[in-house]
Amino acid sequence: MEKGKFIVIEGPDGVGKTTQSKLLCQFLQSKGIKYIYTREPGGTPIGDYIRELLLNPENKIVPIAECLLYASARAQLIEEVIKPALSKGYWVISDRYLHSSIVYQGIGLNLGHNLVEEINIIATGGLMPDYTFLIDLDTDIALSRIGRTKDRIESRGLDYFQKVREGYHKLLNEYNMILIDGNKDIEEIHREIISKLKF
Amino acid sequence: MEKGKFIVIEGPDGVGKTTQSKLLCQFLQSKGIKYIYTREPGGTPIGDYIRELLLNPENKIVPIAECLLYASARAQLIEEVIKPALSKGYWVISDRYLHSSIVYQGIGLNLGHNLVEEINIIATGGLMPDYTFLIDLDTDIALSRIGRTKDRIESRGLDYFQKVREGYHKLLNEYNMILIDGNKDIEEIHREIISKLKF
Repeated sequence: MEKGKFIVIEGPDGVGKTTQSKLLCQFLQSKGIKYIYTREPGGTPIGDYIRELLLNPENKIVPIAECLLYASARAQLIEEVIKPALSKGYWVISDRYLHSSIVYQGIGLNLGHNLVEEINIIATGGLMPDYTFLIDLDTDIALSRIGRTKDRIESRGLDYFQKVREGYHKLLNEYNMILIDGNKDIEEIHREIISKLKF
Repeated sequence: MEKGKFIVIEGPDGVGKTTQSKLLCQFLQSKGIKYIYTREPGGTPIGDYIRELLLNPENKIVPIAECLLYASARAQLIEEVIKPALSKGYWVISDRYLHSSIVYQGIGLNLGHNLVEEINIIATGGLMPDYTFLIDLDTDIALSRIGRTKDRIESRGLDYFQKVREGYHKLLNEYNMILIDGNKDIEEIHREIISKLKF
C-alpha cells in the first residue's frame, strides 16, 4: 500500500491554520482520500494532558521544560498516530509541527534554534513532512483574531509574536516551507494550498 | 555566601533511597546545615503533574516521550528549586537525578545511553552533583520491598529491573558514583554515606 502524505500547516496564532486545515480535510474527503487531522500539542490521551499543562495560564514552566513538554507530546503523537496512519496510506494533516517549537521556544524564548532543533530531531526520529505551509500575516491582525480568553502561550504579547513571525521567515528555506499570504481570503488561500499538492 | 552541596541518592526501586535521603536530611539538620530535599520526578507544581502522568499505570507513553517528560520535570526542578537553593548556600538532597533516566529509559527501554544523556545535558544545562551515591541491592530483594500497588514504572518486572541494575553499574565510573552495598543495615549505610562527605 502506498504511504500517505504528511502535510503540516504552520504559522503564528491567529493566522488561520485551523480553518485551512479543516478545508483541506474536507477537500481530501471529497476526493475520496483517507486522511486524519491532528493538532499540536495533543492528539493522543497523554498529549492532551500535556496540552493542558502547557496552555493553562496558571502554570509556571521554564522555557527548557516547555520545549521538552512540547517535544514529548510530539513524540507520542508520531508513534501512536502519525506513523501508523501514514503506513496505512492515510494522509496526515497536522496543525503545527516541530517548526512551532523552533520558533516559539528556540527564537521567541531565546533557547536557541539549534538546541530546540536538536531536541526535536531526537523526538521526531527525523520524520519530516512532505509539505509544510507557512501562513503569514501581520502580527497585529493575527493577534486581533485571537479570542478574549488567551492561553498561557497566547498571552505573551506583541513583541513575542513579532519575534515568532520573524522566526518563521528564518526557517522558510531550511525547512522548504511554502509561504502563503494570510491576507488573502479563505477560499483563495485554500485553492493556493491544494494547487501545491501532487496527488 | 558559600554555594551549597548537591547530593544525589541513586539506585533501582526498593533499595532504600528514600530512607537514606531522610536520614541524611536529619543528620544535616542536627549539624545546623540548611538543606532541602527533592525527589524525582516532581518537586515543583508542574513537575508533580508530570509525575502523575508518568507513574499512572493507565497512561500509554512511548519510551522517547517518557524520557522527554522526565527531562522536562528535571529542568523545571533545577531552575525553580535546585539552583536557587544552592546559590543561597542550602545543601540539596535529591532522590534520583539524570542517572535514573540514562538507566531506566536509555538502557532499560533501549533508547540508548548516549541519546538520553544528550537530552539530559540539555535539560540540566550541565549541572552535576557534588556527590552521587548508588545504592546497590539484589534485584529480587529490592523488588520484594516495593508495595503491592505498583506504579507504571515499577510494574515492569524482573528482567527490566535486572537491566536497570546492570545499567547503574555501567555508569559508576563515568559519573563518579560512590557504590553503597544496600544489604548492610540502615544505620551502617547512613554512616557510610556521611563518612564520604566533606563539610
